[in-house]
Amino acid sequence: MICSIVGLGLMGGSFGLAMRDYFDEIIGIDHNKKHCEDALSLGLVDKIGEFRDIEKSDVVILAIPIKGIISSLKKISELNIKDTLTIIDFGSTKESIIKNCPKNIRKNLVASHPMAGTEYSGPNAAIADLYTNKVMVVCNIEDSGQIQRRVAIDIFNKLKMHIKYMDACEHDRHAAFISHMPHIVSFSIANAVLKQEDKEHIVALAAGGFKDMSRLAKSNPHMWKDIFSENKKNLLDSIEAFKSELKKAKEMIENDKWDELEEWMKTGNNLHKIM
Amino acid sequence: MICSIVGLGLMGGSFGLAMRDYFDEIIGIDHNKKHCEDALSLGLVDKIGEFRDIEKSDVVILAIPIKGIISSLKKISELNIKDTLTIIDFGSTKESIIKNCPKNIRKNLVASHPMAGTEYSGPNAAIADLYTNKVMVVCNIEDSGQIQRRVAIDIFNKLKMHIKYMDACEHDRHAAFISHMPHIVSFSIANAVLKQEDKEHIVALAAGGFKDMSRLAKSNPHMWKDIFSENKKNLLDSIEAFKSELKKAKEMIENDKWDELEEWMKTGNNLHKIM
Repeated sequence: MICSIVGLGLMGGSFGLAMRDYFDEIIGIDHNKKHCEDALSLGLVDKIGEFRDIEKSDVVILAIPIKGIISSLKKISELNIKDTLTIIDFGSTKESIIKNCPKNIRKNLVASHPMAGTEYSGPNAAIADLYTNKVMVVCNIEDSGQIQRRVAIDIFNKLKMHIKYMDACEHDRHAAFISHMPHIVSFSIANAVLKQEDKEHIVALAAGGFKDMSRLAKSNPHMWKDIFSENKKNLLDSIEAFKSELKKAKEMIENDKWDELEEWMKTGNNLHKIM
Repeated sequence: MICSIVGLGLMGGSFGLAMRDYFDEIIGIDHNKKHCEDALSLGLVDKIGEFRDIEKSDVVILAIPIKGIISSLKKISELNIKDTLTIIDFGSTKESIIKNCPKNIRKNLVASHPMAGTEYSGPNAAIADLYTNKVMVVCNIEDSGQIQRRVAIDIFNKLKMHIKYMDACEHDRHAAFISHMPHIVSFSIANAVLKQEDKEHIVALAAGGFKDMSRLAKSNPHMWKDIFSENKKNLLDSIEAFKSELKKAKEMIENDKWDELEEWMKTGNNLHKIM
């Protein structure tokens, strides 16, 4: 089987690294020439190709921002692809991708979201075990073709991933609460602290807790702008839900309701019984 | 030298474990009988004693909540202690402790805040290298006696800690921004997600980012209630500063100002140039 990977950053690069032995050939495709050179010299792909190489591929991985996935699907729908082609996209929101997928290739698409990543980006950040033991959410699988389902599941099994099936709209709402809102919060902490504090005191006083809470603020702004805009409504809902808890806490602090605050914190402790 | 440790939880227990060879004897003191038994069987202390044993001690570590530190200082001031006794408190806020320290033992006190910890508590959480390579903030050192300064610095060096000197009021303000507010934020995320999401979806979608952002919400509510109430004003200021950044982000999202949002995130990225 020939696999094309569109986007040779952390996600696409790590996929290539993990799957070199599985495919007969992995072709890397990326607008960024430096990424292509790096991916080749790091051994993430067998060769660098162009978008038209998707015509001879059996599998294509779209590991690019959401808007790029949508325009790539449109371009693929105009190519002379194999009927059995399996297109797997790694977009962090799923509804807009599925909605914008041209009808003639809808059965080729297996809309997926790997719950994996690091705060680093680019081919140099690629690691072979990025996907190992992580969850792969697959959305609206009933609209993918039989062959494509089987090919995608084989690949995810090979990556040692745990597959969860989900409706795309539900996925986007859950992802807002569990992933997207926490990113906005982390960036807010980073910006608040940078405005108030100098380097010396941050370095002196930042123990593990602060490092954890600000780690997501290392994330790639260009990529996250795209995710936030595609999931705007759910994101705003999740920010509201967060703000409502913060408001509660603030009012208890202002009004010296320390025992109530303690109970509120105990409720928060419950999260870790299920994680 | 004889050392008494008041409070045999994570902080006091880890101190005992790391310093067993340094002192001739370490006496553990704790209201909680189970903690005493555990500390003894885990080898965190040489023996269990009572508060009056501070009279024969050369060093006393107060590793208990802030209100407990303040009442312990009052009790110590009424004991027949050695003139050279060095009292080291590990309180997370410093101004109220120093303000409430009885004058007759002010020179004995070296007000300290170790920037170390985990989300776990109790003697079973004690680890020998908790303090290694961490920062120890020492406040208003000019009001501690010469002997006490020397003894405390020797101990912190033995623990391989980096000592930073700071004014107590400044410490409390910095700690609010860099430690206390992030705890409130983490509890707010935990509570918001628990209300909106079921166990299945949290487990499926929680990748590393969410785990980081909610880890502080494992913290001990009783202890943190105490810290928050002692640092109320600074905490409220830091929550306001955070809220103002969150508000900015929310407005940019509502108004589709994606390029501005990207710039705001890029500013947040800067934090990691200094950390």
